[in-house]
Amino acid sequence: MGLQNGDLEKEEEEVTEATSGEKAFEGKAVPRWEKQITVRAMVVSLVLAVLFTFIVMKLNLTTGIIPSLNISAGLLGFFFVKMWTKLVAKAGIITQPFTRQENTVIQTCVVSASGIAFSGGFGNYIFAMSSEIAKQSPEDSTKQNIKEPGLGWMIAFVSVVSFLGLFSVVPLRKIMIVDFKLTYPSGTATAHLINSFHTTEGAKLARKQVYVLGKFFSVSFLWGFFQWFYGASDGCGFKSFPTFGLEAYEKQFFFDFSTTYVGVGMICPYIINISLLVGGIISWAIMWPLIEDRKGDWYSAELKQNSLHGLQGYKVFIAIAMILGDGLYNFIKVLGRTIFGLYNQFSKKNLDTSSDSPSSLSYDDRCRIDMFLRDQIPAWFAIGGYVIIAIISVVVVPCIFHQLKWYYIVVIYVIAPALAFCNAYGCGLTDWSLASTYGKLAIFTIGAWAGAAHGGILAGLAACGVMMNIVSTASDLMQDFKTGYMTLASPRSMFVSQVFGTIMGCVISPCVFWLFYKAFGNLGVPGSQYPAPYAIVYRNMSILGVDGFSSLPKYCLLLCSAFFIAAIIINLIRDLVGEKWAKFIPVPMAMAIPFYIGSYFAIDMCVGSLILFVWKKVDRVKADTFGSAVASGLICGDGIWTLPSSFLALAGVKPPICMKFLSRKVNAKVDGFLGS
Amino acid sequence: MGLQNGDLEKEEEEVTEATSGEKAFEGKAVPRWEKQITVRAMVVSLVLAVLFTFIVMKLNLTTGIIPSLNISAGLLGFFFVKMWTKLVAKAGIITQPFTRQENTVIQTCVVSASGIAFSGGFGNYIFAMSSEIAKQSPEDSTKQNIKEPGLGWMIAFVSVVSFLGLFSVVPLRKIMIVDFKLTYPSGTATAHLINSFHTTEGAKLARKQVYVLGKFFSVSFLWGFFQWFYGASDGCGFKSFPTFGLEAYEKQFFFDFSTTYVGVGMICPYIINISLLVGGIISWAIMWPLIEDRKGDWYSAELKQNSLHGLQGYKVFIAIAMILGDGLYNFIKVLGRTIFGLYNQFSKKNLDTSSDSPSSLSYDDRCRIDMFLRDQIPAWFAIGGYVIIAIISVVVVPCIFHQLKWYYIVVIYVIAPALAFCNAYGCGLTDWSLASTYGKLAIFTIGAWAGAAHGGILAGLAACGVMMNIVSTASDLMQDFKTGYMTLASPRSMFVSQVFGTIMGCVISPCVFWLFYKAFGNLGVPGSQYPAPYAIVYRNMSILGVDGFSSLPKYCLLLCSAFFIAAIIINLIRDLVGEKWAKFIPVPMAMAIPFYIGSYFAIDMCVGSLILFVWKKVDRVKADTFGSAVASGLICGDGIWTLPSSFLALAGVKPPICMKFLSRKVNAKVDGFLGS
Repeated sequence: MGLQNGDLEKEEEEVTEATSGEKAFEGKAVPRWEKQITVRAMVVSLVLAVLFTFIVMKLNLTTGIIPSLNISAGLLGFFFVKMWTKLVAKAGIITQPFTRQENTVIQTCVVSASGIAFSGGFGNYIFAMSSEIAKQSPEDSTKQNIKEPGLGWMIAFVSVVSFLGLFSVVPLRKIMIVDFKLTYPSGTATAHLINSFHTTEGAKLARKQVYVLGKFFSVSFLWGFFQWFYGASDGCGFKSFPTFGLEAYEKQFFFDFSTTYVGVGMICPYIINISLLVGGIISWAIMWPLIEDRKGDWYSAELKQNSLHGLQGYKVFIAIAMILGDGLYNFIKVLGRTIFGLYNQFSKKNLDTSSDSPSSLSYDDRCRIDMFLRDQIPAWFAIGGYVIIAIISVVVVPCIFHQLKWYYIVVIYVIAPALAFCNAYGCGLTDWSLASTYGKLAIFTIGAWAGAAHGGILAGLAACGVMMNIVSTASDLMQDFKTGYMTLASPRSMFVSQVFGTIMGCVISPCVFWLFYKAFGNLGVPGSQYPAPYAIVYRNMSILGVDGFSSLPKYCLLLCSAFFIAAIIINLIRDLVGEKWAKFIPVPMAMAIPFYIGSYFAIDMCVGSLILFVWKKVDRVKADTFGSAVASGLICGDGIWTLPSSFLALAGVKPPICMKFLSRKVNAKVDGFLGS
Repeated sequence: MGLQNGDLEKEEEEVTEATSGEKAFEGKAVPRWEKQITVRAMVVSLVLAVLFTFIVMKLNLTTGIIPSLNISAGLLGFFFVKMWTKLVAKAGIITQPFTRQENTVIQTCVVSASGIAFSGGFGNYIFAMSSEIAKQSPEDSTKQNIKEPGLGWMIAFVSVVSFLGLFSVVPLRKIMIVDFKLTYPSGTATAHLINSFHTTEGAKLARKQVYVLGKFFSVSFLWGFFQWFYGASDGCGFKSFPTFGLEAYEKQFFFDFSTTYVGVGMICPYIINISLLVGGIISWAIMWPLIEDRKGDWYSAELKQNSLHGLQGYKVFIAIAMILGDGLYNFIKVLGRTIFGLYNQFSKKNLDTSSDSPSSLSYDDRCRIDMFLRDQIPAWFAIGGYVIIAIISVVVVPCIFHQLKWYYIVVIYVIAPALAFCNAYGCGLTDWSLASTYGKLAIFTIGAWAGAAHGGILAGLAACGVMMNIVSTASDLMQDFKTGYMTLASPRSMFVSQVFGTIMGCVISPCVFWLFYKAFGNLGVPGSQYPAPYAIVYRNMSILGVDGFSSLPKYCLLLCSAFFIAAIIINLIRDLVGEKWAKFIPVPMAMAIPFYIGSYFAIDMCVGSLILFVWKKVDRVKADTFGSAVASGLICGDGIWTLPSSFLALAGVKPPICMKFLSRKVNAKVDGFLGS
């Protein structure tokens, strides 16, 4: 499973439930649900959706690590509407007041839209179908197993699969939130944030945070702009700065001056960053050099550098093994907890039905439940919607991927609601969405079912997309419902906002990907600016599913098994030793990422950790208050710079200067060459 | 005249005479003069002398701009002795308490020692004699006009000429300080600083300042260390970073990431930094491109790039003209004020002899005068010392430079005390030492007297050295006497400390220069790390003095005259419009420096100014308290890095990486070359 939205901040956000949050809002009327969805909210959502899609797409295509952007979405939503209100007020027009419900609607819409940038698979399963990635794979790059990215079919595909998750969770929302009282840590944290913005004190603090965010946004944007001038071609610029020397650079150890990943490092828990670094050291500093010494023995010395039959194979498959091991462990663990939790819920219900009686509930809960249950969405609407969209999908998807037969899809859609429920429930307990694990499950099962002869590789990848969209949307949107529950937003307005968000996402995400694809010609090339590391990983999982282990180089299967088991054991140890010690034990999934792409971004992220750590030592209060604003500013500024930079690339404007790093010897040669 | 010690901070230090500084020290006994010179003071002085000599030498050889280091010397002296006392106390040994007199002795010793790094002429007249500089001059590079640097003769030369200044000022000290009550702004500021250190409150603040200084020292040192790795050869590394693009880089507009000059910029007044930048823009952005367009018309197109008959000639001679114009104006101005001041002093004395009676003096003045006159240095000792050393010098110097006949030296030594007096008096009034102007006077007069046939070029340069040492030492040491006067240090201990300092300087400075000379093979090469810009300027002044204007390229004399007159007019305007407007009018001398070497260091210095400006806007009090500590830290850290870096260079350890900047087109070629 890959890291994705909502995963990484789970240890960071402390859910400090105020004794009574709703008391602060007593007397403030909650607007009707139609009034919660305003034009200004939709305009702001659209702007933020584009912004966050760019950021998520960039992260997708560089390392695949995406931190939670919920906080930034809430904060910026608040800021933009406040600004809008002020401007309009200056023009003398009276507008309705900005409520926290409207704020939640914006946040929900943005999350729905930018979530598609991840679940749409532009960094993994969709791009894995392209010839660029197929070229790097050992075999099966026949026409049958390739589908080049195309704007039309991508929009069509995400449109037919993305709405299913939405309808599948709607009937479950009362069970999850009111009956089971699941935590949904990210959703709860966002709700607290939004609630705090709409108190007088909170609004003042929010303005300060926005100021800090804006400052670091500018710094990060300008730094991106400055860097651009020095990157005339691959191997130029700050992205190739051998900070720790040329030898370390060749082993992918360098600080690449990316403010994005410094910011991501500030949001991610320390242990994730340390895990990445440890993984990078184990793989690039120890294992790969050792394996490279066996060149000619373990694998042929004549192979091209990117061939999966050579060193590259070890890198990719050991990483896959570790990701699968971690995924399997967590899948079983979360599934176990889900079943155990469900069992408890029902047995408790049977024993003591009066526990949820209104009298035993706090003031907050009574307000919230009252509001949450007021505007109902009928079950027939949700189920009807699911069935209709499923039918459309069964018809349309096989037209796009003729390797994916209609009955595969029917099977997926029958099983999917159960898995969506599992994922939403698990996420509510642990804040951990296993969407990509369910996707991988689909790769292996459908891939194997279709078989190599019938384009199983492509079928597997497409099935992954269908599956991932449902389960990912389900958990994301349930988080939003929790936020809505806590901010007294109507479920109906939430649902409509999610629909709008999903529509936006279905158009924006493929377009943004298309922009990247056209602007940067070398998308997916290892070592380039946008290597899209997960694309090759996903394609190879699909090949593995179809062909079995025959394609692996010597001893690779043995090493893979060792790392697969190690991942499970490390996870087990993490769970057994208790939280006190677990925070010192690396996370296998995080360790696996640098195996393939190197640890430069891990160094960026550790720099982020270090900054936060020192800041907390120096001024704990300030660091806690402004830490995530600084991080968001750094991420957003650099992320938004990709917008003008891709337009420049499209317009054929290339950076004028190459900042090159040569060893002294090579430099002498080059000087000789240039002198003559 | 060049910028030199004490010049640049004159507008920065505010001399805020406390109502009664001495009251704070009432009851504290002043130790006997022998007790003021301790072993620990001498050890600390030696360490600091080496440190500052390195810094001054580096500045000498890069741009020739040297800010006042008095403040740092006082601060670090205080810090080291305090540390020493603490360490010794821990070892259980009882030491005498650290007094402000001892602090002054250290400061004086360090200033005397590091002053020789400037007045020894290693960045100008001494190095101007070398074949490296002669190569770049149009003519007269015959053997007669060349003297390669040599450790032996350099030590001998500075030793015989440096003590003269010392003896020449000793008899004058009562007249200057007690009778004339001259301000000596730098000396007064340093005294205030030292006095403040030795109050309880001040000691606490000093510790904080030392902490800040130490922090920025480390940052600056580590940054220097980091930069080193990327500078494998000329045109590599951060020193060649085309911050504003390649075209601007070719015109010498770039930020070269030198923390030294950022620090210098923070110490220098804003107008100096702006002047440098304006000068750089006028010359490199406007004039030189225009003149270059006349290539083939105004000067031959076949000339080598460094030929003084071509564009280089315009650069050097226009800069000289402006420096001379400014020097002449200030010489006349200061001389006028000196004569006027003297006239006033004597006429006042005749009119009102009772004004200096003890009753009319403040408590502070009474204490200070009492102490200053207690330990006398007999006049016969000073005059005898001067005559003996002059005789030694007349014998020794012609042995070193056989072009400089003994009777030239006798003439200089007869005139010198008068000029030394003038300079010390002028400096007391304006804080402006005109040592290099007097030196240039010697170049022209002695050079012309000796004539081209008899090695007039070398004779002029050597005469410059003899003259400069006397007048520069005279003003520097009078500043120190002022400091001593205000801290109740005995004139005897000051004198002894100056003698020790001068002895140290006579050995350390040539050795440090020798280290640079041997470690960095390309000292004095234009565009290299250490271009020593003043060396070529001095040599050409000497050639001009000997040969007249015949060697100049077309229209160069016309342009020179224009700039010579412009320098005078600008100075005149600056003096006429009053202080309020003068601070917006650039200083011609500062404008002339980038004419020859380009404005990269001006950009560094403006960055320093900008930092200080913003800092002052944000937090005025902190900026005022810690500004000069930050600046000193930045200057010292980078300066000290040259020590290990020169040892590395001597040991043949070269940086491993070249950070190169190529245009996109050239980069493609290089990639092709490296690929094949």
